[in-house]
Amino acid sequence: MPLLRSCIPSANDPDGPFPLNNLPYGVFSTEDGARRCGTAIGDSILDLTALEAAGLLTAAAQPVLGDDGWNDFMALGPDVWDGYRAKLQAMLAEGADADRLSPYLVPMPLTRMHMPFRVSEYTDFYASRHHAENVGTMFRGKENALPPNWLSIPIGYNGRASSVVVSGTPVRRPRGQVKGPEDDLPRFAPSARFDIELEMGAIVGIPSDGPVSVADADRMIFGYVLLNDWSARDIQAWEYQPLGPFQSKATATTISPWIVTRAALEPFRAPTPPRLRPLLPYLQEPGPMLYNVDLAVTLAPEGHDATTIIRTNYREMYYSAAQQLAHHTSCGCPMRTGDLLGSGTISGPEKGSRGSLLELSWGGTEPVQLDGGQTRTFLQDGDTLTLSGRAVGDGYVVGFGTCTGQVLPAE
Amino acid sequence: MPLLRSCIPSANDPDGPFPLNNLPYGVFSTEDGARRCGTAIGDSILDLTALEAAGLLTAAAQPVLGDDGWNDFMALGPDVWDGYRAKLQAMLAEGADADRLSPYLVPMPLTRMHMPFRVSEYTDFYASRHHAENVGTMFRGKENALPPNWLSIPIGYNGRASSVVVSGTPVRRPRGQVKGPEDDLPRFAPSARFDIELEMGAIVGIPSDGPVSVADADRMIFGYVLLNDWSARDIQAWEYQPLGPFQSKATATTISPWIVTRAALEPFRAPTPPRLRPLLPYLQEPGPMLYNVDLAVTLAPEGHDATTIIRTNYREMYYSAAQQLAHHTSCGCPMRTGDLLGSGTISGPEKGSRGSLLELSWGGTEPVQLDGGQTRTFLQDGDTLTLSGRAVGDGYVVGFGTCTGQVLPAE
Repeated sequence: MPLLRSCIPSANDPDGPFPLNNLPYGVFSTEDGARRCGTAIGDSILDLTALEAAGLLTAAAQPVLGDDGWNDFMALGPDVWDGYRAKLQAMLAEGADADRLSPYLVPMPLTRMHMPFRVSEYTDFYASRHHAENVGTMFRGKENALPPNWLSIPIGYNGRASSVVVSGTPVRRPRGQVKGPEDDLPRFAPSARFDIELEMGAIVGIPSDGPVSVADADRMIFGYVLLNDWSARDIQAWEYQPLGPFQSKATATTISPWIVTRAALEPFRAPTPPRLRPLLPYLQEPGPMLYNVDLAVTLAPEGHDATTIIRTNYREMYYSAAQQLAHHTSCGCPMRTGDLLGSGTISGPEKGSRGSLLELSWGGTEPVQLDGGQTRTFLQDGDTLTLSGRAVGDGYVVGFGTCTGQVLPAE
Repeated sequence: MPLLRSCIPSANDPDGPFPLNNLPYGVFSTEDGARRCGTAIGDSILDLTALEAAGLLTAAAQPVLGDDGWNDFMALGPDVWDGYRAKLQAMLAEGADADRLSPYLVPMPLTRMHMPFRVSEYTDFYASRHHAENVGTMFRGKENALPPNWLSIPIGYNGRASSVVVSGTPVRRPRGQVKGPEDDLPRFAPSARFDIELEMGAIVGIPSDGPVSVADADRMIFGYVLLNDWSARDIQAWEYQPLGPFQSKATATTISPWIVTRAALEPFRAPTPPRLRPLLPYLQEPGPMLYNVDLAVTLAPEGHDATTIIRTNYREMYYSAAQQLAHHTSCGCPMRTGDLLGSGTISGPEKGSRGSLLELSWGGTEPVQLDGGQTRTFLQDGDTLTLSGRAVGDGYVVGFGTCTGQVLPAE
């Protein structure tokens, strides 16, 4: 598919993140503070809540684009999603009446972004083989790097939806129980090994009440965001046996503000890598269900320029979001509109493609070099971390925007 | 505190679960199907939504007792909770005008109960020492029964709010990945070790945005319910390393329909047992924060009478709900109105006080004898499990009602 040309000139930049091919959904406000649903087009946001109120572009008989995100729209299902997207693309296509839209277009610099949807529940997975092997090698040795179940199950755990925040929200370094190998007893202290995890998040649009197939799970997914699963490694190391991570993962999870729809990502579908062990039938994919999305992370110490510390691709996952979602429903667990599934840290085979500082610094033993001379093993107060993602098409880009957060000192 | 006498004669039974001292909050419907908030008094339910609509008993300037539970009321905070309870007790006290209330009283047998609140998120703990020692002994041997962190941390994991159902909802035996010690590869099969866990659930009324003390955590709790955390032991055994239980715990969690308020439980406060290791200051309790509540579980095979298989007491917990909630917030995790905290399986020191079949049958090796000759290691299709709870006061009882569910065959 080529660049779809728009009547909004800035959307026709072949390197811009928000062409007519993309049309991601978000929630924004301007100086009056009122939250509205919008889509990014070129360097502007089209106010879809206002268009709905004016009767110029509607998704249903009743208004669904309120001030708290896209959940009501998502619940309407794929026919409505597709029809709405088609109308929106026609309205913004080259040759359409841009003057009619101008009252509804807001320059991005005048806006502030908010959570694009209400997170019903949040699940995080552990589904990149290179990440699992890296972490496993550090903790259990190379021979036992992958847990016995890893090649059969997209391992996941439930996270904390209340801790999901939108890009730009500062993240305060947590305190918690930590215990060093030499300590007799744990101490309650600020985390000294505070880290990031580069992930993608899949958003469930269509709810389910029983087990679903991988194909159906794929259709339930409304779209994707970038996701940074902030992680306190020292708190995690002491707490996680036997029931898994808890407080180490509940300080904050940052997502990018734009939901890039599954429709926009269709041209970028990519297969999961070859299986190292056959999957049970309920996890087998009928087609490619990953996406070719270039991902990067920068780290900027306070008052200094940013250094790119990670470059990887969403294709590096061993399990797709559709497989994860199908597994999630396998016991009968109901899924709901607004459920968020973190992919798990996305690490590639090379050192620079490892998706966390834990891996980049090999457990803190190999400091990461930043431009300007500083080094990092784990995060320091004042550091700003920024995830970005883009799917590169034939003469156009589908961008995810950025997912950023600054580390504040512990209270 | 003695029995508070009511103008509703059936509420003055010294052995009845719903005297004026109790006044638990639930959601019920009658034959018209409309859901309403109500309180249990004697053998009737007082329709509080109707009383609010009539202006006879209100909690706030706007109506808060809608058709989807007590969340809006809970969010109003303890002054409103206390004031409302005082007005309700006065309205139902001996000598009050019972005739005025009669249009709002519905006999319990004409009602059906629904979820008493919307569960925001669900967390489950592992905080009874006898339970942890029993399970640990089975899996790791007596010497390593308690994990190293257990005496320092109220270990918890996030569960799945979407799977919480009200008492009476049938529970379908899950399928999932299971792998026996002799199997080379896992199979996808119905769980053959489907189990119950006897727990209490604490409901967060007041939200929080940062770490809170144990004393503040106690005040955030609105009330308690009985909770059965259905667990597929064979799925759990294969999936839980390294990130904890996931699909094994997500089929269903059943709660009793009446929220017994913290106010009603005040006379039954009991201390946690002596510490085997000093707690960090943030977990230390300023006073008794458990409750003396007798708990029991019956099992009835389909078409047969029920046998009581467990008798224990909520006092057996090593950590209170207030300690669990304080720990839950320690990393800054926001808590919200409607969050549900499962105590963890409540096991006492004697064999008959173990809170799960896993423990009662010692991993399936010692079948449990039922009246009528049947035995059980784990649950069979058709079995009905019923939890009950009562706090016994001086001439009165505060009852929790029952928490029941029947096992349906796997699909």
